[in-house]
Amino acid sequence: MSRQDRPLLLTPGPLTTSQATREAMLSDWGSRDRAFIELNARVRAEILRIAEAEDSHVCVPLQGSGTFAIEATVGTLVPRDGKLLVLVNGTYGRRMLEICRVAGIDATAREWRETEPIDPGEVSALLESDPSVSHVAAAHCETTTGILNPIEAIADVVARSGRRLLIDAMSAFGAVPLSARDVPFDAVVTSSNKCLEGAPGVGLTVIRKDALERAKGNSRSLSLDLHDQWQTMERNGQWRFTPPTQVLAALDRALAAHREEGGVAGRGARYGENCRALVDGMRSLGFETAIPDEAQAPIIVAFQTPRDPNFDFTAFYARLVARGFIIYPGKLSELDTFRIGCIGQVNPADIREAVAAVRVTLDDMGVKDCAP
Amino acid sequence: MSRQDRPLLLTPGPLTTSQATREAMLSDWGSRDRAFIELNARVRAEILRIAEAEDSHVCVPLQGSGTFAIEATVGTLVPRDGKLLVLVNGTYGRRMLEICRVAGIDATAREWRETEPIDPGEVSALLESDPSVSHVAAAHCETTTGILNPIEAIADVVARSGRRLLIDAMSAFGAVPLSARDVPFDAVVTSSNKCLEGAPGVGLTVIRKDALERAKGNSRSLSLDLHDQWQTMERNGQWRFTPPTQVLAALDRALAAHREEGGVAGRGARYGENCRALVDGMRSLGFETAIPDEAQAPIIVAFQTPRDPNFDFTAFYARLVARGFIIYPGKLSELDTFRIGCIGQVNPADIREAVAAVRVTLDDMGVKDCAP
Repeated sequence: MSRQDRPLLLTPGPLTTSQATREAMLSDWGSRDRAFIELNARVRAEILRIAEAEDSHVCVPLQGSGTFAIEATVGTLVPRDGKLLVLVNGTYGRRMLEICRVAGIDATAREWRETEPIDPGEVSALLESDPSVSHVAAAHCETTTGILNPIEAIADVVARSGRRLLIDAMSAFGAVPLSARDVPFDAVVTSSNKCLEGAPGVGLTVIRKDALERAKGNSRSLSLDLHDQWQTMERNGQWRFTPPTQVLAALDRALAAHREEGGVAGRGARYGENCRALVDGMRSLGFETAIPDEAQAPIIVAFQTPRDPNFDFTAFYARLVARGFIIYPGKLSELDTFRIGCIGQVNPADIREAVAAVRVTLDDMGVKDCAP
Repeated sequence: MSRQDRPLLLTPGPLTTSQATREAMLSDWGSRDRAFIELNARVRAEILRIAEAEDSHVCVPLQGSGTFAIEATVGTLVPRDGKLLVLVNGTYGRRMLEICRVAGIDATAREWRETEPIDPGEVSALLESDPSVSHVAAAHCETTTGILNPIEAIADVVARSGRRLLIDAMSAFGAVPLSARDVPFDAVVTSSNKCLEGAPGVGLTVIRKDALERAKGNSRSLSLDLHDQWQTMERNGQWRFTPPTQVLAALDRALAAHREEGGVAGRGARYGENCRALVDGMRSLGFETAIPDEAQAPIIVAFQTPRDPNFDFTAFYARLVARGFIIYPGKLSELDTFRIGCIGQVNPADIREAVAAVRVTLDDMGVKDCAP
């Protein structure tokens, strides 16, 4: 099948999966049957293994998108008399704050510029100044810009102050190292369809067992109660409510491929190569990135929109789709950007093909200068 | 592939889907790309068409299981100063009550025996005696027993009293007639993986437009806010948060098959034949159903567990799995039962094959008498 018929997804997800992963969806599963219970146990164990958290944490999967898992994690772990400090440098940080506002969870925020990583020193000062804060939340890679936050240093500061850390690792988990042995956290949240390269439909939280044990009755939502979800699953290996069986089967297959590729190191290495090929290629066309290289995670890259009056993102996007490449609009409030992802079943040759398609497209549009 | 390798799911769902529906999951989709936006619009329109609600209602899909959609519907439509009367004759009625308890939604309940349909006359009296009730919720087919509640008469009583009706039509929608032209309701909730014969992972609510317009800010959950979900989808055709793209693609294909089969009438006719073949076949072996025939929906049948000491459900279940048939445990509190579903890509010949497998299994187990 040609690239035009089966476009490559260069987005933050859902993204390009392997044929083998998609073919794992060709079976029906009885969700309370032994075969599915075993599959589910395998998936949960593998997620814990990736986080190097087998001894300290449990994996609680949840139906829905990553945001559902984030809301469930915050709503389950922050007690009624707790308070969450959200560290914000992009859309996903702001979304955590919105989750708290809607759910009536006491929350406060510190906002950095979207092009700057979170500063652990400032977090330390904030925690000292507000003893009512019980939990801290931050994104590992903030997909708005593709910026990598210094999560190890943040975790250190949070732990030293005796607070609990919830990490939104949605777009980094499985490709950027994050080990429970080195980084103290109560929860790390991801989803099936990012660096794990599964199909979308399941969120996954790695939760410190003793924190979850204390979380009974915190949640104000039955569907999003991870304590209840966990208790039921521990009891009989089954989901409380119908799971997306095919999505889980795809994830099971995708996790086997993750292991075959060499786990976090192997996957991270390929994404790193993708990212370098993308940034180098786009810079050779005159594009500029939104954030400095040292803060860039190998997940998704935000490029500044060219000032050239012939450049129009909607037309640019549509022409790239026609050539078989789906990119992503920007989300920064401060800068006009668009984004190209480097995750999924994509390799550097694909990326070079995409950059070549960008070059031809710019020529077609009469864009001469890609400077912002 | 033999039946043993690909067992038939005779459950309330997830259930047996068609090969064509599963193959629709073999593509990746950009969730913000035109092709997926069109697919999503097609799915929403078809659901409305099935409910004959194009003029009065909108379809709001939600990531997750049916319970997520139920919770989202209740949480979005019942205002902060409202009160929900839940009509209970089984597990799913009780679950709605539990949703309200956890979410802090004011609710009251009337409980009938699980083997009895809800009595509309009593509902009328209840509504008269409690003017604080603003909304009423009931299951169309209560999957606990497979009983069909008289939803038209209930809707009539609720409408005449000026209250609003929320229908859990999870396991009946698409096979048992329910038209917005005849039955006044504010919401009907179903999911992708019941009588629509899609893969699990999406809940679907058909909501009266003017009720949804008034529901802004009711929800205490960002993820489960159907007003916000609807507003975003109306604006650009996109989901707020990552949708399960392959599950939607499967549903799109499954809805085309639903239409090809003759819509609700065609699908309901096949399920009716399945149900008759099942009940007749099992009775010929000596089994007794849990509810009278006139209350039985053609969805799932609860059979009473034989008293014969040689009958053991766990062994019976495992032997049927080995023969390629997955049945379902019982859920009644009053009666010891097990359940066999008649929905999904299943026809009367499959059902007769399943009954034959039951007969051989009983012989193998030395069960002589299937009377309860």
